[in-house]
Amino acid sequence: MTSTRTFPAHADVVWHDDHDTVRAFRFDRSGWEPDVTPAVVAQVRSVAGVQHVLRLANSMGLPVVPRGAGTALTGAAAAVDGGVVLDLTGLDRVLGIDVENELASVQPGVITADLDRAARAVGLRYAPDPASVEISTIGGNIATNAGGLRCAKYGVTRDAVLGLDVVLADGRLIHTGRRAIKGVTGYDLTGLFVGSEGTLGVIVGATLRLRPLPATTTTIAAYFDGPAQAFAAVAAIRAAGVVPSVAEFIDGPTLARIAEHAASTLKAAGNAFLLVQIDGAAALAEAAIAVEALRPMATSVTVTQDPDEAETLVAVRRAALPALERLGRVLIEDISVPRSRLTDAVAAVERAAAMTGTTIHTFAHAADGNLHPIVVLRPGQDFEHPDIQAAANAIFRAALDLGGTVSGEHGVGVLKRRWMRIELGEDVVALQRGIKDVFDPLGILNPGRAI
Amino acid sequence: MTSTRTFPAHADVVWHDDHDTVRAFRFDRSGWEPDVTPAVVAQVRSVAGVQHVLRLANSMGLPVVPRGAGTALTGAAAAVDGGVVLDLTGLDRVLGIDVENELASVQPGVITADLDRAARAVGLRYAPDPASVEISTIGGNIATNAGGLRCAKYGVTRDAVLGLDVVLADGRLIHTGRRAIKGVTGYDLTGLFVGSEGTLGVIVGATLRLRPLPATTTTIAAYFDGPAQAFAAVAAIRAAGVVPSVAEFIDGPTLARIAEHAASTLKAAGNAFLLVQIDGAAALAEAAIAVEALRPMATSVTVTQDPDEAETLVAVRRAALPALERLGRVLIEDISVPRSRLTDAVAAVERAAAMTGTTIHTFAHAADGNLHPIVVLRPGQDFEHPDIQAAANAIFRAALDLGGTVSGEHGVGVLKRRWMRIELGEDVVALQRGIKDVFDPLGILNPGRAI
Repeated sequence: MTSTRTFPAHADVVWHDDHDTVRAFRFDRSGWEPDVTPAVVAQVRSVAGVQHVLRLANSMGLPVVPRGAGTALTGAAAAVDGGVVLDLTGLDRVLGIDVENELASVQPGVITADLDRAARAVGLRYAPDPASVEISTIGGNIATNAGGLRCAKYGVTRDAVLGLDVVLADGRLIHTGRRAIKGVTGYDLTGLFVGSEGTLGVIVGATLRLRPLPATTTTIAAYFDGPAQAFAAVAAIRAAGVVPSVAEFIDGPTLARIAEHAASTLKAAGNAFLLVQIDGAAALAEAAIAVEALRPMATSVTVTQDPDEAETLVAVRRAALPALERLGRVLIEDISVPRSRLTDAVAAVERAAAMTGTTIHTFAHAADGNLHPIVVLRPGQDFEHPDIQAAANAIFRAALDLGGTVSGEHGVGVLKRRWMRIELGEDVVALQRGIKDVFDPLGILNPGRAI
Repeated sequence: MTSTRTFPAHADVVWHDDHDTVRAFRFDRSGWEPDVTPAVVAQVRSVAGVQHVLRLANSMGLPVVPRGAGTALTGAAAAVDGGVVLDLTGLDRVLGIDVENELASVQPGVITADLDRAARAVGLRYAPDPASVEISTIGGNIATNAGGLRCAKYGVTRDAVLGLDVVLADGRLIHTGRRAIKGVTGYDLTGLFVGSEGTLGVIVGATLRLRPLPATTTTIAAYFDGPAQAFAAVAAIRAAGVVPSVAEFIDGPTLARIAEHAASTLKAAGNAFLLVQIDGAAALAEAAIAVEALRPMATSVTVTQDPDEAETLVAVRRAALPALERLGRVLIEDISVPRSRLTDAVAAVERAAAMTGTTIHTFAHAADGNLHPIVVLRPGQDFEHPDIQAAANAIFRAALDLGGTVSGEHGVGVLKRRWMRIELGEDVVALQRGIKDVFDPLGILNPGRAI
């Protein structure tokens, strides 16, 4: 169903409408496989190019899916049939780093880890670090309000965004926010665009807050008999007044899968693993307090200040998802609950697995209460399989019953729309639709996603 | 112009429509004195009472001004002629503090310092601390996205709000956000209500994030020859990798006024004063780094870990505004600029004073780049006096030219509407109006404020 329309030329837009190229853009990393064929892929090299594409799409009534690296886990970056894929990866420059004000000005296609490396070169860092940091773009991170490992201390992407340049659905360019740290002039449109999954406008530039590199970092790795002990350890650390920058939980089965494949020093010495990092000028002293707090619950504890040893332990955490993906196609869930309900949440996930006969392993950003139950599909199963649906529904129900949310950091996209409505309720959903109509009256921007 | 309408009874609403009572609510703390007479003041004691008032106002097309302690500095809480003043100070309970999850559930009329004291009783604290903390309500803090002294490290009010209960213009009650730290389900309505100055809905409950009390706090007081040296000291502290929790600047003339009246140990030993606090487990070590960084610029430096001595120094800062208010009626400005432009901003304020023959003194949250130029009116002058208007306009122009904003933490209210439009531009203002229409189609909520 390749489009036969011709798209007006622009110096900063490359159009692709051959079948194979456009079909390659129908996926994101969610595993959701819509059988759609976009009309065209527009690769843009300037803000003016983005405006050209939007003006055109607006005049033709064509749906537009803004896309960075396509690493969304919800279908938010998957193409729409007959629509435009707006590929922003060509806008890939760090425009400036203002050391004194601890700010970065970036284009949306910058790989997030590249931004962090540019900041590190001048003694600063970009704090939000989704697990996809080496492959995802900052524009995508902003569009999904990406989380990560360090949110426990440094906040999520929204906390790092001071201002945005946005192309609206009709091609107009607006600027939100400011280069000052504080500002309360009018409603917070910057925060509204963050996490809006490309449905309100196309992010073409951002002013981001950087932070000083911590003076020191101490890493603690501990094993426990089970999840309850590991989460009690996190609570004990917080109760001792220590705010870790990282507190990652991995369950026993996931540990076993990592150990099978990873060339690491990991030994599956327990049924639950906790990776804690504490940074700042007092990291070592605070780590001593943390170790004292968690030792009663742990079966073994390792502490290191050696960066290489620490990196090996962090690599274990990063190996968790790939290790599970080797077992089969996966549905990646992303619930978040009050921290005190983490053990209940893991128990609910285990019940969901037992009830539906599915395999579900869990890792978690424990200090945030954000769990990633990973549902491993059997050969021949897809996301719509009744057992998979039943397992996912049980997990979502548990998240809400425990006072949490069906999405901690990945977003709604296509896959969570039904549960988003259940979580928010019809009155709130109606307000969200009203906002959508203000920004995108023709409904061309990433239709059917996020809200 | 007292209303002769009768207002239907409700068990949780007390109506007042006598002239003297309603006239007493026509002011907030901005100093702006509209000659208006509200029709009625509704004192509410429950969420159901708020809903009753809103349903009634909606059906009668009456404007409603939600009001906490009335400490707004922009006219945002001043009454509207013939409208309803919705007094929320009766909803004054801390409903719960969840120690393990570091959360507070509060009604909007709680005095912010009372919330902080309740948190301190269990080893936590509520971080945002506007200078009005002892007299302003948390609902008002949320409605204005209040800042304060500790924002430099702990963020502003928006960063502490996880969820809200809001009564919409038509009386419906909605819930936004969650009790989990992270969540990305739908657009961020919580963040949108924060700072919306009562124009989108009435905040009747909030779930707030608390933080551990810091292990230790070190206070540094330093004098300098002038603003440039003081701001260079702040830059030097940040360049040394230290993130202070407080970094307050006071100019020489303000120091002299404080010294005239305050029973404090303050000596006006320089033309600029900086109060720095560093907290956490490494406060003393980091303070040593900070002192080493700032000593080359300073004329004198004092360091203390004694809480009483620290409180005396903080009290100096809190005495700044009252000391200037003794000189005459004041117009309190609130610009914010990138930190590296603070010296330029103070110079611009001094030029504005010289050009217009007005008296303007400045104190600032220096680590945030947030300045409060205080314009002291001469007897007989009001805010509309051409000299006062010219001075304010010169200050706003400078804020924008320096890459900043016309309001760092006080908001727009009535007084900054024209400059808000200049700062944001017509396209952004039109989007804000569109959002307002979605939430409040009849325009009854705090009309003519914020946007």
